[in-house]
Amino acid sequence: MSAFRPKGTRDFLPEAMSNRTRAIEVVREIFELYGYGELQTPAFERIETLLGKYGDETDKLMFKILKRGKGSERGECDLALRYDLTIPLSRVIAMNNQIRMPFKRYQIQPVWRAERPQRGRFREFYQCDIDIVGTTSLLADAECLTVMYRCLEALGLPNVVIKVNDRRILADLAAKAGATTAKEEISVLIAIDKLDKIGVEGVTRELLKREFTEEGIASLFAALHKPDDPSDQLEKLSTCLTDRGRAGIDDINQIIAAAILMGTPEDALEIDPTLARGADYYTGPVFEASLRDGDIGSIAGGGRYDELIGKMSGKSVPTVGISLGLERVLVIMEERGLLPEPSATATVLVTIQSDEVKDASVNFAMKLRENGISTDLYLDQKSLKGQLKYANALNYRFVAIIGPEEATQGTVTLKNLKSGEQSTTNFADAAQMLNQPQP
Amino acid sequence: MSAFRPKGTRDFLPEAMSNRTRAIEVVREIFELYGYGELQTPAFERIETLLGKYGDETDKLMFKILKRGKGSERGECDLALRYDLTIPLSRVIAMNNQIRMPFKRYQIQPVWRAERPQRGRFREFYQCDIDIVGTTSLLADAECLTVMYRCLEALGLPNVVIKVNDRRILADLAAKAGATTAKEEISVLIAIDKLDKIGVEGVTRELLKREFTEEGIASLFAALHKPDDPSDQLEKLSTCLTDRGRAGIDDINQIIAAAILMGTPEDALEIDPTLARGADYYTGPVFEASLRDGDIGSIAGGGRYDELIGKMSGKSVPTVGISLGLERVLVIMEERGLLPEPSATATVLVTIQSDEVKDASVNFAMKLRENGISTDLYLDQKSLKGQLKYANALNYRFVAIIGPEEATQGTVTLKNLKSGEQSTTNFADAAQMLNQPQP
Repeated sequence: MSAFRPKGTRDFLPEAMSNRTRAIEVVREIFELYGYGELQTPAFERIETLLGKYGDETDKLMFKILKRGKGSERGECDLALRYDLTIPLSRVIAMNNQIRMPFKRYQIQPVWRAERPQRGRFREFYQCDIDIVGTTSLLADAECLTVMYRCLEALGLPNVVIKVNDRRILADLAAKAGATTAKEEISVLIAIDKLDKIGVEGVTRELLKREFTEEGIASLFAALHKPDDPSDQLEKLSTCLTDRGRAGIDDINQIIAAAILMGTPEDALEIDPTLARGADYYTGPVFEASLRDGDIGSIAGGGRYDELIGKMSGKSVPTVGISLGLERVLVIMEERGLLPEPSATATVLVTIQSDEVKDASVNFAMKLRENGISTDLYLDQKSLKGQLKYANALNYRFVAIIGPEEATQGTVTLKNLKSGEQSTTNFADAAQMLNQPQP
Repeated sequence: MSAFRPKGTRDFLPEAMSNRTRAIEVVREIFELYGYGELQTPAFERIETLLGKYGDETDKLMFKILKRGKGSERGECDLALRYDLTIPLSRVIAMNNQIRMPFKRYQIQPVWRAERPQRGRFREFYQCDIDIVGTTSLLADAECLTVMYRCLEALGLPNVVIKVNDRRILADLAAKAGATTAKEEISVLIAIDKLDKIGVEGVTRELLKREFTEEGIASLFAALHKPDDPSDQLEKLSTCLTDRGRAGIDDINQIIAAAILMGTPEDALEIDPTLARGADYYTGPVFEASLRDGDIGSIAGGGRYDELIGKMSGKSVPTVGISLGLERVLVIMEERGLLPEPSATATVLVTIQSDEVKDASVNFAMKLRENGISTDLYLDQKSLKGQLKYANALNYRFVAIIGPEEATQGTVTLKNLKSGEQSTTNFADAAQMLNQPQP
């Protein structure tokens, strides 16, 4: 019998974990510095909580869980793995009237999507989210943007750009193209969102296929046409929009001003009237971060969704949030050599040379652990040479050797595996030496 | 539409997270102090990896995931959520020939079981595991026991007792009762394991129902009968066993001696020839921790499973490990008042009194965050009174107020919410005051 891992998933052995843990800690520290409290929710939700929230295509990508007992023989499912952290948060808010608003929470947990695996895209991956629940204040949108930038900066990613748009601008543009229903509006949004990738021709083709008129499409691109001076773009666009779209432009301008006040560099912010973001539930401003010189697409995104929670609870709760995709960030960092060398868990291997000196080795390991030094005691029977090889392979800094002579005298020989130096001292001095920080 | 959470699962709001995170950190620190490296595996495994490893009853408790696309209409499942962390570890070892032995890994991740929810038992819960892969040395078993004890001690649990047994003793006892097949052996194990709960009569009834003879059952209880001096029990038991069972007794004695050498208190260890542990895969020593004065059952357990990995990879890899159940530990700690007060994420709320002084408040919040002080900036429009109420409810230590006068002078009024004291200073002095540790 052979052992296999499910398609699109990964194991993280200790070498790989050290950099993952470090990246998560960087993000967590910034979230907490901004006063966000941690929320955790179960891996699965009731299936009716998840279905129909993101769009039809997305519903197909859910991992659905078979009922236990009755109904299982008919393939009925009552649960599904969460697809993001936004719907679970919304469900928590809808269930908990006592939560004080504005509620600032962060959540760092895996989500699952049955997508075709590719570079930086897996079927299980971590999202790092913050959301501010219960306020329409645009300061909240600006803080989300700022925290997004701060995280990517702290992770060491260069040339971050955050694109900003507003769904109300897109709604006006879709109307220009001739959309009259919510479904048609979504079709236009999806097409425009691809402008970067497939160009004007591609978008036109797609819209014609969906029976939009040439006239409508032309009027859409006229509105999007960039004037010679890019700083005039919003003003020009604004003349093509209704009050709804103009309210979107006003909000974007306010958010950007506040984000700059909060420390986001002006040149990291960019208005992009074609940015749509996928999820159906956004109602106002939307954001998306990528690298100016990157080719892996969006690494963080978010926006305002003022109606989603109300749909679950019957009580409107305006909310804005962002989500940072840990896996793509780590892929970029690895490809660009931004990750430090993986660090070993233990500082030192305490060898056991023979059964006769076992007690002294065990005692020394205990002494080191009492001093807070991460210590691996070699528990198998192997030659000293084999034990040294193991310590080298695991990238430990030191090996401790206690032979019969050392055991009698209560000493230990410490060998520095990087420099090759070694010295024999009593236990206390050895512990002190090991406690010194790594050069 | 109403919002519901799946049965048997929980959300952890920030107040609840602070104690969970603290408990996990205590356990993680000890695991790392002993040199274990972290492993993480996907939430689900291929269904054939999981089924048939724990026993028939357990297979029914798995959350099975419906195939995507073809086969889904017939209710076919190809994946299931992991039921423990032992099978995923075994699959990782079977897949990765390059891993250097002995491999000491820890894993702290949720597992899922469709059990009937009750006190301390949930459908999603965290396990904290260490395993030592690739050695038959009994020092490994002893280290697992010792780490188990150290974790429970560090969490502050009093009166921990770790029961120790060996499956080979149980196999001999089952043979005494008349078991001749593996299935019959398991039946006897399951019955004996309940001796504490249902007594000699209950076990007898259960074995009679499974068609064991009265004679066999009598001979089983004769072997288990405790002599007047409890320290004679093993010797007496040993006379009733075959060489197989006696090898189990020898190993237990060696493990206990080594665990005591490694610092486990002698009076926390207890030999219990009726201890079986549930999983089918154990082959030798088994352990189980509980509280002497507790009523919630086992809080940690483990044992040696030398054949499980070989069944997946075709190559025998002896392994021993333990698993600590975080949820029961937390339930006990809560019931006994051993948990500290939940701590707030932020130290201070920076209020925004009005739009005119917004910039000063934002600047002060930035200053505090630069100084590493976790700071919540109030982003909604509300009266100062409302903002103070919010800060009190969230248990923050300080509130910072910047009115028009302070804004002009570049000062801030800091109010200590515990003592009620307040003072007005410049930003730098205020940051210094907030940086002082909580009394």
